[in-house]
Amino acid sequence: MNARRRADLPHELVFLPLGGTGEIGMNCCCYGAGPADDRHWLMVDLGVKFGEETDPGIDVVLPDVSYIAAEKSRLVGLVLTHAHEDHLGAVAWLWPQLQCPIYCTPFAAQILALKLKEAGLDEQVPVKTMAVGARFTLGPFALEFVAVTHSIPEPTALLIETRQGRVLHSGDWKIDRTPVLGQGMDEKRLRDIGAKGVDVLVCDSTNVLREGHSPSEADVARRITDIVRQAEGRVAITTFASHVDRIVTAIRAARATGREVVIAGRAMRNTIEAARACGMLLDSGRLLDEEEFGYLPPGKVMLLCTGSQGEPRAAIARIAEDIHPHVSLEPGDLVIFSSKTIPGNEKEVGRVLNNLARLDIDMVTGDDDLVHSSGHPRQGELALLYDWVKPRALIPMHGEPRHLRAHRKFAQARGIDDVAIPRDGHILRLCPGPLAEIDEAPCGRLHVDGRLIVPGEDGPARQRRRLSFSGIVFVSVVMNQRGDLAADIEVMSDGLPMGLEGELAAAAEQALGAMPKPRRKDREALAETIRTAVRRAADGLWGKKPIVKVAIVDV
Amino acid sequence: MNARRRADLPHELVFLPLGGTGEIGMNCCCYGAGPADDRHWLMVDLGVKFGEETDPGIDVVLPDVSYIAAEKSRLVGLVLTHAHEDHLGAVAWLWPQLQCPIYCTPFAAQILALKLKEAGLDEQVPVKTMAVGARFTLGPFALEFVAVTHSIPEPTALLIETRQGRVLHSGDWKIDRTPVLGQGMDEKRLRDIGAKGVDVLVCDSTNVLREGHSPSEADVARRITDIVRQAEGRVAITTFASHVDRIVTAIRAARATGREVVIAGRAMRNTIEAARACGMLLDSGRLLDEEEFGYLPPGKVMLLCTGSQGEPRAAIARIAEDIHPHVSLEPGDLVIFSSKTIPGNEKEVGRVLNNLARLDIDMVTGDDDLVHSSGHPRQGELALLYDWVKPRALIPMHGEPRHLRAHRKFAQARGIDDVAIPRDGHILRLCPGPLAEIDEAPCGRLHVDGRLIVPGEDGPARQRRRLSFSGIVFVSVVMNQRGDLAADIEVMSDGLPMGLEGELAAAAEQALGAMPKPRRKDREALAETIRTAVRRAADGLWGKKPIVKVAIVDV
Repeated sequence: MNARRRADLPHELVFLPLGGTGEIGMNCCCYGAGPADDRHWLMVDLGVKFGEETDPGIDVVLPDVSYIAAEKSRLVGLVLTHAHEDHLGAVAWLWPQLQCPIYCTPFAAQILALKLKEAGLDEQVPVKTMAVGARFTLGPFALEFVAVTHSIPEPTALLIETRQGRVLHSGDWKIDRTPVLGQGMDEKRLRDIGAKGVDVLVCDSTNVLREGHSPSEADVARRITDIVRQAEGRVAITTFASHVDRIVTAIRAARATGREVVIAGRAMRNTIEAARACGMLLDSGRLLDEEEFGYLPPGKVMLLCTGSQGEPRAAIARIAEDIHPHVSLEPGDLVIFSSKTIPGNEKEVGRVLNNLARLDIDMVTGDDDLVHSSGHPRQGELALLYDWVKPRALIPMHGEPRHLRAHRKFAQARGIDDVAIPRDGHILRLCPGPLAEIDEAPCGRLHVDGRLIVPGEDGPARQRRRLSFSGIVFVSVVMNQRGDLAADIEVMSDGLPMGLEGELAAAAEQALGAMPKPRRKDREALAETIRTAVRRAADGLWGKKPIVKVAIVDV
Repeated sequence: MNARRRADLPHELVFLPLGGTGEIGMNCCCYGAGPADDRHWLMVDLGVKFGEETDPGIDVVLPDVSYIAAEKSRLVGLVLTHAHEDHLGAVAWLWPQLQCPIYCTPFAAQILALKLKEAGLDEQVPVKTMAVGARFTLGPFALEFVAVTHSIPEPTALLIETRQGRVLHSGDWKIDRTPVLGQGMDEKRLRDIGAKGVDVLVCDSTNVLREGHSPSEADVARRITDIVRQAEGRVAITTFASHVDRIVTAIRAARATGREVVIAGRAMRNTIEAARACGMLLDSGRLLDEEEFGYLPPGKVMLLCTGSQGEPRAAIARIAEDIHPHVSLEPGDLVIFSSKTIPGNEKEVGRVLNNLARLDIDMVTGDDDLVHSSGHPRQGELALLYDWVKPRALIPMHGEPRHLRAHRKFAQARGIDDVAIPRDGHILRLCPGPLAEIDEAPCGRLHVDGRLIVPGEDGPARQRRRLSFSGIVFVSVVMNQRGDLAADIEVMSDGLPMGLEGELAAAAEQALGAMPKPRRKDREALAETIRTAVRRAADGLWGKKPIVKVAIVDV
């Protein structure tokens, strides 16, 4: 590229989101510094999004980073703000395309190492562990991990300084002045950064529709302890597997009330291991295995388990269906959902709550009591951050379109006039200001399908979705040299009401019979004629047109 | 049956729910009077439930009423408490099995007539229209429609009296002392009924988790009028198509603020027509058609439309996607969601809200302001009804399992000790008391698939769900008399990643080749061998095992 460089292009700092603008999850954005024909790129976060029912058979969705991968020699690194799946879950899938060094704090490095090991990449990927508060330089980017508070250990905002300007990329955050673990939000540093001037704040919008301030983890800890203290039977607490603060809270509540702690769920065990490797959870005592649950008296046990989002294979879902191999609850036992239901998971969570109700088990959720606090800022917290950082311009991130739009309105009402709602694949110039969309880059989403990465927009999941509405019919037609049927037409279907195959075969035969022999030589026309006849027959019998595939075999 | 009657069996009043216990929708219960071998049945409500994503391609789910249909000579009638889909939507589908007279109030009769006409049944079905408050006798059942309040015109509770005892079947209700339309809840009659003694109250549980009293329609009307008054651009209000009170509120708000009213959505037009046929909405003035929307100045128009549950083909969804043929909104226009999101519809509603946000349109929902009030009783209202009716026993209905369980707890805390949570297909003896499960009847659910009614539990939707996870492969194998391939093996697939078919065909050929010729004569064994080989090959290449179907054709 240098060869083609035009010396007169201005130096700019640009922002290119490749995922996570206007949807939940799959966070990935790139910052580019330099002239348009000689940019260096920095990638911030590389997360997954979980598959939705509109993409059947897909558990994991990845951002398409091929635009940056094509320029990977100019990618100076990938920085991870924290260890949540929607910020680092895609690394093990996509690093082979990017081949760049990765920078993150110790806890994220622990979580990432596990994933890289599972993918067989642990020997290859250069992961540089940096302390919270660390400053480091990658190509034209001077960076700093600034401590914030969130629902996972070591959450950071990223200060990005280039010759062209300064950006604070908030990551996911809230203001919690009494967190259970960690040093808390570095308000002093944020004020200092603000005093020096911030061009653009790229900011979490998740809870912008909520007024006031989020409750602190300490408030949640008090309520959970009270509730556990009053419980007479077994207590199970389910929360996000990565929420170490909440895990500590639950363990402390158990210790305070004389209960042993049993852990169920692999993801939670992994988190605990990662936390301990980083010096957390060291005073939590012995945590028991699922197998030990049944031997403990009801009033002496607390189960800490996964499944707060209704994941059907997670521990609490199986307990609620009474099919867990080691844990069962009885009428009068208590389950605390120390979590909120992420939008889109309502049905799944409802299913678990209903199954627990069928077993006559008591429940407390975040709707009933203060057993959860979100890790994202409400309006009061946003206003405080604006006040500390005093950004000239703002890019609302992390939220659905209605949140991004509400965030724009909120920021503008507080005097930040220059607000641009980002869109995946749209390159925004940040500095020199004002914010302006200057270019587009290809982007999109990929599906992890089985163990393959396939296109997300028009891949196999979309085909399967069509199959799921109206099923499929296969027609085998064996023809001889004379243009006659060499055997009966064979019809096989799946996903249709019983008993239609005979009539569909008859329709195929009739269509063939009505076709003059010379025309049958055109095998494509023959197949299309039969296909159309079978679809029409299905529509007449059933009222739906299935997918029809016709194989013409010559003998 | 009389022939086999044993004279010594006791006379009982029993309750048999066939749908709607522990799920939302598909309400259908039966009351049986007489000795166990000589019961007469009364059916109350016959509603649909909407299909879920776990049943792809299914829009409508029906209760399986074959147990009652098999004794239809002993079915004295079907009584409909009100006109909501989940109470009468299955009549046009299932009446041919039941062939009984139907009793309902005038508004429900209007709504039903439309459905029967569409199904070509309007000439055959005997629908008896009864006034709210009417008393009538069907076989051993003396019945009375008691006026309640709810989110549709002419909602009723049903008083059921037999020689064995008295039951009040609440239907769906709330206590609204200032409804927009209708005579209001007949508190006096309910108190009188209570004074004479009620054995069992069969009661709505939908909002039992909420404390206090529901706001009145009058409160909602005031807020909506204020919001419309402040709006400067176009206003669209979406609500449940059948919510005539709310439609009246919206029209009055438009008239009060000098706006014309445009109606969009067939279901809402149908409701308005039915309401007018019953003497409602007569003073609402001219309601305009969609085509007229574009000609009116922004400040002079209100659109009243369907789609409050995010239905993708409804008016507001198409407006939000900017693909509606006649209506488009612009930045600064306002959409009021005068509705609540029914659990399970969150994603769909979210999609509409986000699309509106992308168009920069302002929104108000029931989460933001008092623009909706539920039609179901909160705890304060339940306590009042208990106080009026003073039931000896209670059966919680209309809710998910966690609501039914919470209702039991709530009722028991208020001195109603005898509470039984009903289950579809389980026959409860109501009188003589106490409540007791005495028998089971077959039940289940049916799917409307295309225009056929098919089994719900193990029908084509379940097959299609399997298809939607891992796709399908068809293999055509043409064999000659000598046991050799007469043509190349043909593989066609759908829902698999691209480019696997060649290798799957190779796996099929290899499996065939490895099979000794004499064994190939067993066509079933041959097909199974090929099927297994193809599945294994797909698993190796992709990591998933698709459905594989093999056609062996002999020439």
